[in-house]
Amino acid sequence: MRRFLVIGHKAVTSPDFSLKDLPGSAGRMDILVRSIRASFLVSHGLRDDVELYLVLLGPPHAPLTLRFTGRDLKHLNPDEWNTGKLVQKALATDTTGPVWQESTPGVHVAAVGLAELRDALGGTLYWLHEDGEDVRALEDASADATFLIGDHEGFTPEEEALLREWSARAVSVGPVSLQADDAVTLVQNEWDRRFRAA
Amino acid sequence: MRRFLVIGHKAVTSPDFSLKDLPGSAGRMDILVRSIRASFLVSHGLRDDVELYLVLLGPPHAPLTLRFTGRDLKHLNPDEWNTGKLVQKALATDTTGPVWQESTPGVHVAAVGLAELRDALGGTLYWLHEDGEDVRALEDASADATFLIGDHEGFTPEEEALLREWSARAVSVGPVSLQADDAVTLVQNEWDRRFRAA
Repeated sequence: MRRFLVIGHKAVTSPDFSLKDLPGSAGRMDILVRSIRASFLVSHGLRDDVELYLVLLGPPHAPLTLRFTGRDLKHLNPDEWNTGKLVQKALATDTTGPVWQESTPGVHVAAVGLAELRDALGGTLYWLHEDGEDVRALEDASADATFLIGDHEGFTPEEEALLREWSARAVSVGPVSLQADDAVTLVQNEWDRRFRAA
Repeated sequence: MRRFLVIGHKAVTSPDFSLKDLPGSAGRMDILVRSIRASFLVSHGLRDDVELYLVLLGPPHAPLTLRFTGRDLKHLNPDEWNTGKLVQKALATDTTGPVWQESTPGVHVAAVGLAELRDALGGTLYWLHEDGEDVRALEDASADATFLIGDHEGFTPEEEALLREWSARAVSVGPVSLQADDAVTLVQNEWDRRFRAA
């Protein structure tokens, strides 16, 4: 199983945002929405062996985490407008506390943040970091893995302390600093090459 | 210089499409719009050494090609809604024949198709193809390159004949068939690793 976690420090936790301005009014929600596409969609289908956690830390109800499960996921379109609507539906779900509530098939939401997600994140933890080890050079990569990815602000010092406590391994996808969804695409490709036959 | 060309066989050639339904009503325009982002946007900026050609072959005015030039490009937002608006502005430009007309800074449009673009596509031509040589294994890769990428339908037999006539070299980005914009992201990473210091 491959798992991705992307953190959105400014991403709003209410469904009342404009789909016409995901970067601005919704707190760089565009990055998170594109990470959904990059996690699940291939040319003519959907990856069913992937889980994605989006940690939303913007106003008014932070923290809130959305969980997408490939094997159950339905109604996923490739475009940002319709994926944004799926996120709005998730954010409109009545959520209190750490119990996962289903909003649409394969999408759940809970009032938890990064620290509370440790038990859900299985396999080897990889922390996407510009100064990390080259992902192509890893000698003991694990098919069962979770990739932890910051947004345009990276991770905060407190979050970084948590990742160190979890012994997450810093890995880099290349020499140029990229947006989170491109990092997902590059990791998928590396793991496809390592663990999936052509 | 890196150049990308992405072909949209169904992509509409009129600005009268709905930004709420890029995949359907606009003929998979979502793929082309995301290819713009993947060609130019990095974490905190824009690649100025890239050119992108989008070849639109849908109704009512095909063929029409949009050219995006990194060093001149302005008003490029990361999200599909606003990038879709940029495409609509280009498609609203009065265009007759093969002369490039500027719609917004760094964006030009001309009434040409793939065949007429040969002279604009410099450097080594690479044809993204599932059965091509692994892009990571290329021994004589050229920094000056053009990457030719099909949409969800690939290339037609006529287009493939043209690519062969041009001696385009078939290269593959990995074992899983991906959407065009993911292919752009993977090529960018490979070329960043080969030709750009960390």
